[in-house]
Amino acid sequence: MKKIRISIIGFGVIGSGVAKAISKKRDHIKHRYGIDLDLVGIGENNGGIVCEKGLDPMEAYNLARSREMNKHPCWKEDMKGIKVIREVDADIVIETTPTNIDSGEPGLSHMLTAFKNKRHVVTSNKGPLAVAYKELIRAAEENEVQFRFEASVGGAMPVFNLVRETLQANKILSIKGILNGTCNYILTRMSTEGMTYEHALSEAQELGIAETDPSYDVEGKDTACKLVIIANDIFGIDSTYKDVEIEGITGITLESLKLASDKGYAIKLIGEVEERLIVAPRLVPKDHLLAVGGTLNIMSLNTDLAGEITITGKGAGAIETSSSILSDVINIAKL
Amino acid sequence: MKKIRISIIGFGVIGSGVAKAISKKRDHIKHRYGIDLDLVGIGENNGGIVCEKGLDPMEAYNLARSREMNKHPCWKEDMKGIKVIREVDADIVIETTPTNIDSGEPGLSHMLTAFKNKRHVVTSNKGPLAVAYKELIRAAEENEVQFRFEASVGGAMPVFNLVRETLQANKILSIKGILNGTCNYILTRMSTEGMTYEHALSEAQELGIAETDPSYDVEGKDTACKLVIIANDIFGIDSTYKDVEIEGITGITLESLKLASDKGYAIKLIGEVEERLIVAPRLVPKDHLLAVGGTLNIMSLNTDLAGEITITGKGAGAIETSSSILSDVINIAKL
Repeated sequence: MKKIRISIIGFGVIGSGVAKAISKKRDHIKHRYGIDLDLVGIGENNGGIVCEKGLDPMEAYNLARSREMNKHPCWKEDMKGIKVIREVDADIVIETTPTNIDSGEPGLSHMLTAFKNKRHVVTSNKGPLAVAYKELIRAAEENEVQFRFEASVGGAMPVFNLVRETLQANKILSIKGILNGTCNYILTRMSTEGMTYEHALSEAQELGIAETDPSYDVEGKDTACKLVIIANDIFGIDSTYKDVEIEGITGITLESLKLASDKGYAIKLIGEVEERLIVAPRLVPKDHLLAVGGTLNIMSLNTDLAGEITITGKGAGAIETSSSILSDVINIAKL
Repeated sequence: MKKIRISIIGFGVIGSGVAKAISKKRDHIKHRYGIDLDLVGIGENNGGIVCEKGLDPMEAYNLARSREMNKHPCWKEDMKGIKVIREVDADIVIETTPTNIDSGEPGLSHMLTAFKNKRHVVTSNKGPLAVAYKELIRAAEENEVQFRFEASVGGAMPVFNLVRETLQANKILSIKGILNGTCNYILTRMSTEGMTYEHALSEAQELGIAETDPSYDVEGKDTACKLVIIANDIFGIDSTYKDVEIEGITGITLESLKLASDKGYAIKLIGEVEERLIVAPRLVPKDHLLAVGGTLNIMSLNTDLAGEITITGKGAGAIETSSSILSDVINIAKL
């Protein structure tokens, strides 16, 4: 049995969801891969839980859900994120702090600190990748550690591992897809229920599908970040957020959706990487593969050998995202 | 640079297509993975081409297409499939002889011989897997070699590697999909063009989408074989072809398709693995993901963490299938 010591930095919905998934799947992963995932540290911005002998991930999850992490016997106020990364002896740091597309912080410093301390990093955090992809890759290489970010694009839907592990012989010619579930939900509801944009948005907010400040999603910024990561990793295009041409869905009217529908089209917020990186609403024939509804994400890869490969899955959700994070963790642990 | 010596056994459409793909992608694979794919042997049922210093795969492809393999300077009449496997010093044997679902031969003997000679096997051949999955896995393990068969199901669409390399932490609860492009083509044409079954079938035969004897496809046998491989590999269900409940598409009338269509449904030949293995025509809502048309294959996996993941791609074609074969070859070469 190979013991893999894990710290989780950022213990919100995604971070605590990873702890829950570890609790649920620990035996399965032991049995199947001979890998024992041992949670030894959790770092938040007001303190952390550290236990070198291993924590009960489900206990930590429950305390986080009831906002009582400081009641854990191993809670320490001075053990904030970056200190946990430096001082707790973990093999892998799972970085799940919120995305910040301006500076990439605090994720960027977390990741660079982890690399410097010879720890592998697995993340769902798009911010650092969208502003400093090259710097991160170089830092990981220099420190001879792994850096994986399957969960940063598409939630549970495999993107980077799909290309890296199942389409190795292919050149990827272009990628096109729906990479933001919030926008897809709003457009689907407007189209199928005849709701106005404002109505669909407020419904999405009530359901927790959209944030109180939805601008990051509806203005296309989230999709743009994801395209930057795809462009860098899959196409080797050295790009950052500012290289993306972006148009969101805030200008889409019920009338335009109806008009499109009458002609057999849906309107979808499509992200594309080919020569340029573009996010824009597009007409998609209703019977086209990309015309998936609800909060689904979907991605079509145009390749030189396999032709077009399309994959779809849940683009959000804590447990769903944990599927991608644990896939990266297992891939690193197997090396 | 790691040199990987390859023999291809069965040099028909798929086998020669692999040679063409190797020719096309050899530099890419060298550059990207540091692996040099060196074709050293080709075995057919009337002889073979053997050259320990390496063959030009494109020359072999062209000779095969013009049925002049015996004009190759290294052609030897006595070097038939099994002899090439035994005597040519290859690291990986790519087995691409035709599928035989009764005995699995000649593929089964080819694979067992390759294992005994400590050669890894990569195959697109469903026959041996559908009749002797366990025996093959055991033989590969005993001889400490790899056995990969991504191309046996779904053509270019990743199936086994998708589960193994991108959904590792998940339990797969059930799988449902369209795994035969010929049936999908016939049903699509009947439905969209109002053709009779006979008319759509003969069109498919003219286009090379259906065989002269189409029974293997239209009676659901091909889909059944694929379910057996999925059940064994992904679910660990010890099963063979005779465990599948099979109903094909030969009884589907234009009237039933019209009736379904009026109610918003398509009829698709669906293969399912859950507790039982079933192939049968099913009503699928037209706006459902599984309602893909033409010759596409599609597979939905229901998982415990990621929820539902659906993938679709070209289920046939020599170059497309080579994508899966080369993916397996690269995965083995990287070990």
